[in-house]
Amino acid sequence: MTTQAIDTAAPPAGRPQAGQASDPGKDRVPPRSWGSDPHSGGAWGHNTFQWPVRVYWEDTDAGGIVFYANYLKFFERARTEWLRQLGLGQQALREQTGGMFVVSDCALCYRQSARLDDLLLVTAAPVEIGKASLTIAQSALLKPQQPGELPTLLCEGSIRIGWVDAATLRPQRIPPAVLQVLHAGRAAPAAST
Amino acid sequence: MTTQAIDTAAPPAGRPQAGQASDPGKDRVPPRSWGSDPHSGGAWGHNTFQWPVRVYWEDTDAGGIVFYANYLKFFERARTEWLRQLGLGQQALREQTGGMFVVSDCALCYRQSARLDDLLLVTAAPVEIGKASLTIAQSALLKPQQPGELPTLLCEGSIRIGWVDAATLRPQRIPPAVLQVLHAGRAAPAAST
Amino acid sequence: MTTQAIDTAAPPAGRPQAGQASDPGKDRVPPRSWGSDPHSGGAWGHNTFQWPVRVYWEDTDAGGIVFYANYLKFFERARTEWLRQLGLGQQALREQTGGMFVVSDCALCYRQSARLDDLLLVTAAPVEIGKASLTIAQSALLKPQQPGELPTLLCEGSIRIGWVDAATLRPQRIPPAVLQVLHAGRAAPAAST
Amino acid sequence: MTTQAIDTAAPPAGRPQAGQASDPGKDRVPPRSWGSDPHSGGAWGHNTFQWPVRVYWEDTDAGGIVFYANYLKFFERARTEWLRQLGLGQQALREQTGGMFVVSDCALCYRQSARLDDLLLVTAAPVEIGKASLTIAQSALLKPQQPGELPTLLCEGSIRIGWVDAATLRPQRIPPAVLQVLHAGRAAPAAST
Repeated sequence: MTTQAIDTAAPPAGRPQAGQASDPGKDRVPPRSWGSDPHSGGAWGHNTFQWPVRVYWEDTDAGGIVFYANYLKFFERARTEWLRQLGLGQQALREQTGGMFVVSDCALCYRQSARLDDLLLVTAAPVEIGKASLTIAQSALLKPQQPGELPTLLCEGSIRIGWVDAATLRPQRIPPAVLQVLHAGRAAPAAST
Repeated sequence: MTTQAIDTAAPPAGRPQAGQASDPGKDRVPPRSWGSDPHSGGAWGHNTFQWPVRVYWEDTDAGGIVFYANYLKFFERARTEWLRQLGLGQQALREQTGGMFVVSDCALCYRQSARLDDLLLVTAAPVEIGKASLTIAQSALLKPQQPGELPTLLCEGSIRIGWVDAATLRPQRIPPAVLQVLHAGRAAPAAST
Repeated sequence: MTTQAIDTAAPPAGRPQAGQASDPGKDRVPPRSWGSDPHSGGAWGHNTFQWPVRVYWEDTDAGGIVFYANYLKFFERARTEWLRQLGLGQQALREQTGGMFVVSDCALCYRQSARLDDLLLVTAAPVEIGKASLTIAQSALLKPQQPGELPTLLCEGSIRIGWVDAATLRPQRIPPAVLQVLHAGRAAPAAST
Repeated sequence: MTTQAIDTAAPPAGRPQAGQASDPGKDRVPPRSWGSDPHSGGAWGHNTFQWPVRVYWEDTDAGGIVFYANYLKFFERARTEWLRQLGLGQQALREQTGGMFVVSDCALCYRQSARLDDLLLVTAAPVEIGKASLTIAQSALLKPQQPGELPTLLCEGSIRIGWVDAATLRPQRIPPAVLQVLHAGRAAPAAST
């Protein structure tokens, strides 16, 4: 899973964001789905939604790389599109139910940097679906410049979101109809949705 | 786990960002330093730098609250000002050493929401200073509306930053002169700087 | 007036951003190209590049609408993609020439608001190509919810960009090879690129 | 006035954002108020509100300078603080009146660039107060590094804001009580508020 390595198998002590790993291949991931249409999902572990994100000037900082907070924007876009392809539009959900998702926790590990004009693939995969919250594993990968190369893992993390009443911001149980869609989406391969 | 050190006493399982705690006092923190000049630090645990942040339109989202990624902006501002009051200007450091800090890991727990016009106090306190990276505990607190009230904890987290060569982005040891300043700053009460 | 060139026919005196016009059809524009693949340009006036932009949480503010500065992000994305489809990648240009485009002037008129989950079409069309700068007319349109409806004009404006040495930021003439591509791209219908 | 040079006296044709003017003094402005407490306004033309803005990593882009859209954030912060010092808190206004200000037009001219760690002074001065909208002249200036130097004009522009019903976004007349405060604030020197 994308998050397990954050601080167990590969303790990142002292490894900065942009470090070039001593083993240049260890952050590469299999290109199983890169060639397919990223908008319609793919077969990343048979169940991982993917969304392409281009790096624009707005995303970079004076270090010449993507500003660290902006990966949370990229992750949010991918979560939104993952929900949308399940049929869950957040604006519509709020109008229908009076509730919305909010983030309660996040943890990110930055492994390599992205630069202007880079094309990323951002993934979202639910790893836990509870009655009032869900946890989603996410990652950002760099599309290879050359065919045959593997994508490079740039950033990975875990995001927990909960459901609240939009007016009071009080936590609530996720509406059953929404939960049902989430469970069904998890069971089915992303490619089939 | 990345978040356990932040949140041992109160495991956040299932608690969304904006939840109103059943015990309304449990996220309140002692106002030891709020009244002092926040720009010049304070006595938060005798060693915690503080920086005021006002919530503007740019920080909020359509949920009426501060967008979750923007706390990473607030935290970065506080880290920058913490370094600045130690005498470490990052632009100057880069010109002098050719290196810069980059974020390698972050973990945040969102407890309450902030809204437009809220005044926050953002803290930064080094909890580990290594030869190539440091870990900083950070939090965002809401200033009480009424005198005598305690500030409310909105968001807390842990950020690890490493030192890299600015041109190659390769990880490097933090320059000894910078390390010395960091260690000296940690030993001294923030209020005395 | 700074905006008069953009908006002569309909002087915007006193009309706020989100105002519903008394004539609900007057901000609608012909849907000549909406149905075509927006990534590959279209036939908006036979020469207008178009780029789709989805509104995410990050783009909105507590007013429930897209924050006004973010249209400049949307416009920049469309300009970048317009340059890219001409073969002008900005990161590559900088590495090859040592120069880059910077914005010298902008003027925007906000006519209607966009909301979370809206799908926009952002256009970019050069209206003046000089030796050291170019002026680009841009607009953001809301995709109709129903087939047969016309897109709604949300925001339109004019952006002037100049060429500078990336190291010194001194203005320079646009490299001849770049100018040639810009002129050729203007002459050709966008749909043919 | 801050905006008059935008396109009348000094047509900026061909002058990019970051250009170093041939006459290095022509974008300098008198330092009449820089030394005073910027939070409490000053004597910039006896009627110009000022607000300090520090440039952080989040504000910069890969060009090493402040991203052009972010000046609109800086301008919004200064407008908000200008309203606040008049007693007009926007969150409170919305709760009390059901209305809010939205931007209808903006025009900016970028003259020089700002970099990481720069300290800016952002001004806001109403130049027209109508029944449904107001126009505000704004500028961003760079604080001199050396005492005795003049601040450098980085960016100047004009922003028009209108009043709308927050629920429907329909334009409305500015509430009389708000108008009265705006007119009173314009008449009085900013330093006296």
